[in-house]
Order: sequence, then structure tokens, then C-alpha cells
Amino acid sequence: MDNRKEKLKLLGKKIEKEVEKGENPFLDVPIRNLSNVSYNPKTRMVTLGNKTSKRFLFNVAHIRKFVQTIETAAATKELIEVDKHLNLRQIYYKLKRTLPGTQINIVDEQEETNKAVEDLELITGLSREQLHVNAGKAGFAAGKIVIEDKGDTIDWSKQGSGGWAIPSNVENINFKKVDAKFVVYVEKEGEWETMNESRLWDKINCVIIGSKGQATRGIRRLLQRLSTEHKLPIYVLTDADIWGIYIYSVLKYGSISLSHMTESLVIPGARYLGLTPEDVIKYDLKKHLIKFEDVDIKRLEEVAKYPWFKDDATWQKQFKIMRDIKGKVELAALTSKGIAFIAEKYVPEKIKNKDWIE
Amino acid sequence: MDNRKEKLKLLGKKIEKEVEKGENPFLDVPIRNLSNVSYNPKTRMVTLGNKTSKRFLFNVAHIRKFVQTIETAAATKELIEVDKHLNLRQIYYKLKRTLPGTQINIVDEQEETNKAVEDLELITGLSREQLHVNAGKAGFAAGKIVIEDKGDTIDWSKQGSGGWAIPSNVENINFKKVDAKFVVYVEKEGEWETMNESRLWDKINCVIIGSKGQATRGIRRLLQRLSTEHKLPIYVLTDADIWGIYIYSVLKYGSISLSHMTESLVIPGARYLGLTPEDVIKYDLKKHLIKFEDVDIKRLEEVAKYPWFKDDATWQKQFKIMRDIKGKVELAALTSKGIAFIAEKYVPEKIKNKDWIE
Repeated sequence: MDNRKEKLKLLGKKIEKEVEKGENPFLDVPIRNLSNVSYNPKTRMVTLGNKTSKRFLFNVAHIRKFVQTIETAAATKELIEVDKHLNLRQIYYKLKRTLPGTQINIVDEQEETNKAVEDLELITGLSREQLHVNAGKAGFAAGKIVIEDKGDTIDWSKQGSGGWAIPSNVENINFKKVDAKFVVYVEKEGEWETMNESRLWDKINCVIIGSKGQATRGIRRLLQRLSTEHKLPIYVLTDADIWGIYIYSVLKYGSISLSHMTESLVIPGARYLGLTPEDVIKYDLKKHLIKFEDVDIKRLEEVAKYPWFKDDATWQKQFKIMRDIKGKVELAALTSKGIAFIAEKYVPEKIKNKDWIE
Repeated sequence: MDNRKEKLKLLGKKIEKEVEKGENPFLDVPIRNLSNVSYNPKTRMVTLGNKTSKRFLFNVAHIRKFVQTIETAAATKELIEVDKHLNLRQIYYKLKRTLPGTQINIVDEQEETNKAVEDLELITGLSREQLHVNAGKAGFAAGKIVIEDKGDTIDWSKQGSGGWAIPSNVENINFKKVDAKFVVYVEKEGEWETMNESRLWDKINCVIIGSKGQATRGIRRLLQRLSTEHKLPIYVLTDADIWGIYIYSVLKYGSISLSHMTESLVIPGARYLGLTPEDVIKYDLKKHLIKFEDVDIKRLEEVAKYPWFKDDATWQKQFKIMRDIKGKVELAALTSKGIAFIAEKYVPEKIKNKDWIE
């Protein structure tokens, strides 16, 4: 039997038993705040501790959340049974209804279903995606991998100028043929198109994955699966600014808000390929500096103190350069060195010279 | 010879000749503001008039823009010659350099290159995409069409749960096999995934194209090509709000800012499938109303006065319902009628019953 349905059924049975015994039914919800989240230097991941809080049915302060969590569990069980998926907005509408004979809605705001889905992840240990609740869809892939998805065989090296569109949920994708030796992930669509147009993935035997800014859960999970299941190194390309480095930080170490999902989302072996602040000097890009605003500087000092960065000499050197040059440089600035410089020189040379930050 | 290169060369030769004759070289730039843009009720398109303004090299007020336009022309000629593309951000960096012996940069802000690219479109009659300058990349396609792109044959009916990622530039795509009878375009990724998961395109023999909000130029051009080259009806799905109707309005009639590109972007035959304000009543969705803010009401009254809407009884009826119900309803609200209601009932029934607005 489907392990996921089993877990959801066990949850229901537990509540049922408590009702039958005349007890006050409760849910044990792992606590997800700073008091229960910590960085484990051994695994190099942000992880969740063991603290939980009990949520009771017969408790005026708890009942609303209790019912929402149980209703969400029922909805996800149905989704798994009929093998359909919904996103967070859609599941909110699915749950939104008035209790018969009352003026009370099960949910009034999407924020409530969002929380209930997260609680269900925490309680069952199943990811939102395993529960058939999808996050955003974004990103594209091209390169030397053939996958199977929904019965279709999809060759990422035969996707023209567009690439394969990454779905919100990549749990059921099978990697059929992995000729790629590594993955280059870039946070910018324009640079992805430049690399694809130059067929970088063909020249250096890899896969290129692109997004528009911060990677969605679907992209993170795809990168993570390629890293763990096929041992492919993941190289990350972002703008040389603190927001870009934060994208890398989340990919590699995780985040507080998704600390319960660390093991299925985090990529401990991710490598920061660039643009590094050092590259700004090395590639003579200082004339393309965009001056920091106060918010950038504030963020820089926050990120520089992250447990995984604060004692790392390589990263502290990068942060120091940022403080000195007082500005950021975009990946697009590499265009000033040549139309396809990023694809023809920058990425291949940096990988060849092992010029990345681990 | 490549018609595009020819046009750019002619432009260069004209300037060269004027220099040789000792004349003051100039560019004739079509004027693109309300005084020169109008709605043509016959073609049902927003179109540009014949007014132009002269931009001289030896004129302190003109020289900067003159040089930027010529530099952009040279850059696009190079792009066409080496068969590479750049986006607007990248071309800005390509042009950004200091004139030798001076402190003057060719461009200081991206806004300047953006304008220069637009001017070049106006002067040459070539679209940005034909000039190898790409706009944003977004969107995904699935369904009964096989294309050829960059030497790859891509079957949109074999793209798994992700779909084919639409590139920023679709000028060079060849439609090899078009079995689809029409296109359903939806502005929301979640509803696209629901329709794809239900294989709607297989059941009703179509193509589904999705975006995240407003369609990019690449998506618009793809829809327009399918409409003109293959006479496929284009059905548009948006939220039942004025912003959704505006998305449809731009697709079908064009916009002032792109009036010079009307013929390659506008889809006169586009049909608004829904959500119509009338659907909110018919499908009993009033309980999912999200109350209008002042900005929604203001926008509603602006759009209702558009030349193509103001005398249209069907649209005025929809606007009246919006004023009465004083709120908007999202496509996602259809989930309250069933997990895949939009794919299994709503879209197929509306198309079968010809229940759309033309």
C-alpha cells in the first residue's frame, strides 16, 4: 500500500481512537522557530530539533487549526487517491466552505491553508509535493539527460531554444540516461538563453538549469535529486550581490522556514561558481558596479554572520571585497567582454580551473 | 541577402552619404504617442500613424539619442551576423562604454538602450526579435503540435508534466505538424498544470499555453503565429477581474506602447473564454469574491471606455456585472467545484456551447 496514504490513515485512526475513548484528540506538531532550528556543522545543514507542541480539538485556542489540519489531511488523501495535484491557492479554494448550520468557514484566508499544509508536512514527514500540493512552476532545463515523466521520454538535449519547462512537482520524474557530468544552475533567464544558444551543455557535457531569481521548490528538488541520485556536482551562478549569495546559501544549507524539509531540498555539495566579488576585480567589471543601497549593506552584514559563513575565510574574503567595492555586479555585465562570453569563456574556464567556492 | 541586414546597411549608407555630402545626418523616427496612435475600427487594431520627427547628429538636443540609435543598429547587425541573441539588459552592457578621450559614456542607463531598440524597430520596421534582441522568457506549451527549433523536433504532446518552455524569441520556430484545432491560453501556471495533468489538450484536440500573469512578447508572438499561420482560434482564460480583461485586451487589440508592432503581435480573432463576470453568477462563485480596491474600480472605468469596448454591448454587460458584484473572482476558485473542474467541465463545456466573448 502507498506509504503516504498509510501515514495519513494512521493519523486519522489515531484521532478516531481518541474520540472513541472519550479523550481529547490532539496532534503533535514539531515546533518550527529559532528555538527548535539549528545549524548542524557535521551534516552542514539547517535542521529541525525534537520539540513539539500539542494541538487539541477541545481547546478554544487550538480547535480552528486542528480542524484545518485534519481537513487538509483529508484533502491530500483524496488528491493522492485520484492522482491529481493542486497548488496552494487551489487547495485553499477546495477547503473554503461554510460549516453546515453555522456562519463559520473552515478557512478564511490562504495563509491558513498554507500553515495547515506545512503542519501536515511536519506531522507526517511527507513533503508538500508528496502530498500532491504543488508550489510554483518555474525554470527550464537543457542538456545531456533523458528523463521519463508521465509516460513521455524527454531528451533535454533536443529542446530547441526553449528547453524543457520544469514542473512544480518533480517527484515522479525518472532519470533514464544521465550523460551530463555536472549541472550549471543560473538564476537569470537571459544568461540561461545565452548558454543554451551557445550549446554550452554540449561543449562541456552538462545540464543547464535556469530560473528567474530565487529557485522554486521544484527547481531545488530537481537539483537535489541530480546531486544525490546521480552524484552530479551542482554549480551555481548568480549576480555578484548579497541576494545572489543568499540564493546559493539556501540551496546549499537550507533555510529556517523549510528546516523540516532540509533533507529533500538541501544540496550540501553545491559549489558557488560566480560571479564572485573577486571576479569583479579579476574580470575587470568594476565599471559596471551598481552602488549598494543601505538595504544591501544591512543584508550583507546579516548573511556574513550566518553560522556556515562566519568562520569561513574564503567567504569572509568575498564579503570584505563587497564592503570595499560597495556595489554589486550583474551576470549580464559579462556581455561587455563579448556577446557570449559567459558561455564561451567564463563558465568553461572557471570549471576547468576549479575556480569556485565550495 | 538577409533582408534585415540589408535594412540596417541601408540605414548606415544613408548616414554615410549625408556625411560625405557635408549635410547634417538625420534619422526619421516615427512618433509614438497618443497624437500619432489610434484605433482602427476596420482592422480592429491599435495602429501607428505617419507622423515622424527628425533626429539630427549636429544638434545638441539630438546627438546623444542619434549616436545611441546608430550604435544599437551596429550591435544588432553584429548579432544577426554571428547569429546570437541578447536581451535588453545584456545589450545595455554591450553598448555601455566610454568614448575614447572623454568622460562620456555611450549609455548610462538601460532605459536609453531600451529606447534606442524601440526607435530602431520604428525606423527599420523590424521587430526587436528580428533584430536579435530578446524580451523576457516565460511560459510553457503542451498539446497536439510538433515544432522544429534549432534543428530539434519537439513534440508538444510528449512533454510530461512540465511542457515545452517557450523561449523569448519564437521567430525561427517551424510548425511541422499541427493537429490541434485551437489554443487555450491561460494566464495562471496552476490552472495550466491542472489542464495538463488532465490531458485536456488530448481530450479536446488542442494546445494549452500558460504564463504567469501578462503574456510576454514571446508568448504573444507564438499565439499570433498560430492564429495567422494556422488559423487556430485562440481562447483566453484569465481571472474575472479588470486586470485579466486587460491581458485579453492587449492580446486582441494591442497597446499604445507597442502600436508599431501591432501587426506581428495582435490577434484580432482572440476569444475571451472566461472567467467572465457572468460566469461568477452562472457557476455560483460569488462566495469567492475578493472585494475590489479603489484601484480596481478606477481601472475598470478606464478599460470600459476603451474604443473597442465602449460601444460593445456584451462587454458593457460584463462591466456592469463587475460594478454590481464589486469584486473579482480567480480562476483557482473553480477548484471549489471539483479538483479538476476547469479541465473536465468548465473549458470543454464553454467551448462546446460557444460560450465566449469575441
